[in-house]
Amino acid sequence: MCSLPVPQEPLRRVVVTGGTHGNEMSGVYLARHWLRTPADLQRPSFSTVPVLANPAATALCRRYIGRDLNRTFTNTFLTSRATPDEPYEVTRARELNQLLGPKNSSQAFDFLLDLHNTTANMGTCFISNATDIFAMHLCHHLQFSPPRPGFLICPFRLQLKNPELPTRVLVYRLPKEETYSLDSVTKHGMSLELGPQPQGVLRADLFSRMRSLVSSSLDFIELFNQGAAFPAFEMEVYRYLGCEDFPHTEDGDLAGMVHPQLQDRDFEPLQPGAPIFQMFSGEDMLYKGDSTMYPLFINEAAYYEKNIAFIRSEKLMISVPALPGLTPTPTPLT
Amino acid sequence: MCSLPVPQEPLRRVVVTGGTHGNEMSGVYLARHWLRTPADLQRPSFSTVPVLANPAATALCRRYIGRDLNRTFTNTFLTSRATPDEPYEVTRARELNQLLGPKNSSQAFDFLLDLHNTTANMGTCFISNATDIFAMHLCHHLQFSPPRPGFLICPFRLQLKNPELPTRVLVYRLPKEETYSLDSVTKHGMSLELGPQPQGVLRADLFSRMRSLVSSSLDFIELFNQGAAFPAFEMEVYRYLGCEDFPHTEDGDLAGMVHPQLQDRDFEPLQPGAPIFQMFSGEDMLYKGDSTMYPLFINEAAYYEKNIAFIRSEKLMISVPALPGLTPTPTPLT
Repeated sequence: MCSLPVPQEPLRRVVVTGGTHGNEMSGVYLARHWLRTPADLQRPSFSTVPVLANPAATALCRRYIGRDLNRTFTNTFLTSRATPDEPYEVTRARELNQLLGPKNSSQAFDFLLDLHNTTANMGTCFISNATDIFAMHLCHHLQFSPPRPGFLICPFRLQLKNPELPTRVLVYRLPKEETYSLDSVTKHGMSLELGPQPQGVLRADLFSRMRSLVSSSLDFIELFNQGAAFPAFEMEVYRYLGCEDFPHTEDGDLAGMVHPQLQDRDFEPLQPGAPIFQMFSGEDMLYKGDSTMYPLFINEAAYYEKNIAFIRSEKLMISVPALPGLTPTPTPLT
Repeated sequence: MCSLPVPQEPLRRVVVTGGTHGNEMSGVYLARHWLRTPADLQRPSFSTVPVLANPAATALCRRYIGRDLNRTFTNTFLTSRATPDEPYEVTRARELNQLLGPKNSSQAFDFLLDLHNTTANMGTCFISNATDIFAMHLCHHLQFSPPRPGFLICPFRLQLKNPELPTRVLVYRLPKEETYSLDSVTKHGMSLELGPQPQGVLRADLFSRMRSLVSSSLDFIELFNQGAAFPAFEMEVYRYLGCEDFPHTEDGDLAGMVHPQLQDRDFEPLQPGAPIFQMFSGEDMLYKGDSTMYPLFINEAAYYEKNIAFIRSEKLMISVPALPGLTPTPTPLT
């Protein structure tokens, strides 16, 4: 897998986006809060811009108006000619690409963190492109784990308030697949999922946790900008394999629901033969795969219309190369 | 308080409604299931009709299209002349009133049970008019509690699968206030709230519990129709007192959120001085009331637009008079 180059210079322009889905309230209200009090996001070596990504959907407390914004950052959409009847989110994706990109250009922002919630019991999960070494180091930094050798190099390791809550990493990119999410517009980026939280509800515990994770992410960027080096490491990640649809009746309606033994068991191993759906008629439907799988985003509200009951993933260890410290730029003689 | 007359004859026409709010999925999918398999709802002495109350909102998985259907069953709406630009739910309320009522008429259905979900941690809660003695007896029958003297009269007392889950009763009607909910269209009726469940999500545990409660409700009606008598009793209920709004900024946006110490504490006593909101700026906002109160529907997603952070209630004991057994109708001599 070809890796994205690591930054050779300090990251100067960072963006934190909330409300990419207008009913995921932690990011919506954090973005609104930071738009009023932007000083909370500032660090000595770089500036951070808060952006409410989908203001029209946010105003209606809906995921989107015309189509899912977070599937609209492909080159096809970004380079298409504007038409009067195009979905709002196509227009908005072009605006965000102009503001924060353009995608794949040297003018793009250095880093983007996109804030999401899920109704699934996903806890804290970063979703990133495994080829982005910088993002992988940030995920690793935010994972609560016993101090590693890197600890000495990185003394400001995040102290989360709830150390019992694990921070997981989902890597989703398949080779040669075109990226489509908001965080693909900038040079580096990733998204953060916190759950469970119902759509349209703002829970104080998740709000505080997201705020803390964003703050720690910015602290990591500050450390990097100040010259900190981060050694190579191995990290456990979940890799996207595919989607599992609900059972349906002949006329396309749901014929069953996520099995109570699977509900809320995101990240737990699922064995072949285990029940995954409970039919309305009473029978169980079993998992027919031939190996252990890790289901994610189980019973996410927004995925019903996408025919996704859960996402199938595999758990694996990946090796991430070192992130070298920046070479100090010599001050020009005057 | 003037009581609604108790039924003097067997209840012959019963209706169970789901999808009055189109994104409350337990009732939506139970109604759809029963429309395919209506035999599940039948009992020897009466017929039960399943109705999907708001099909247009259900198709879009939204609470409503134009206005909240469950606030539209006032005489003003029901007797208004149809206009081309009226909200969909006003038209639908008139249709349902024709189908199941008319409200306050002798032609109305005998009993209606309206199925709802909430994102709040409300567990199992029946909402009823305290003056409806028949509905109060049904609530009492469904409450899991140690056998009372009535047990011998009512041998088929509900055996819920989760006896540790309490079943609470919220009485909401204030004297002389006009009723506005769907269950006011029939002679007797009440609604059932199960939570927590996110909007747009169907959880198997809540689906099964709702199905079981509906079945037990129909069993109670069958018992009554067969001549069972139910003695007077005292029952603990929560009585609606009013609503508590969120804190707002000067421009009307949220300035804080439900305090983590209050979140998920529905039905627990709240003392004056206890924290109820956590401001985004960090401070706590305390409850300023002068007596203990019982908050309900804490952080319900659908109530943000109604400016309701939670409902204030008081806990009290009410005395419910006996529900006499029906006098067998003498078979006419031929």
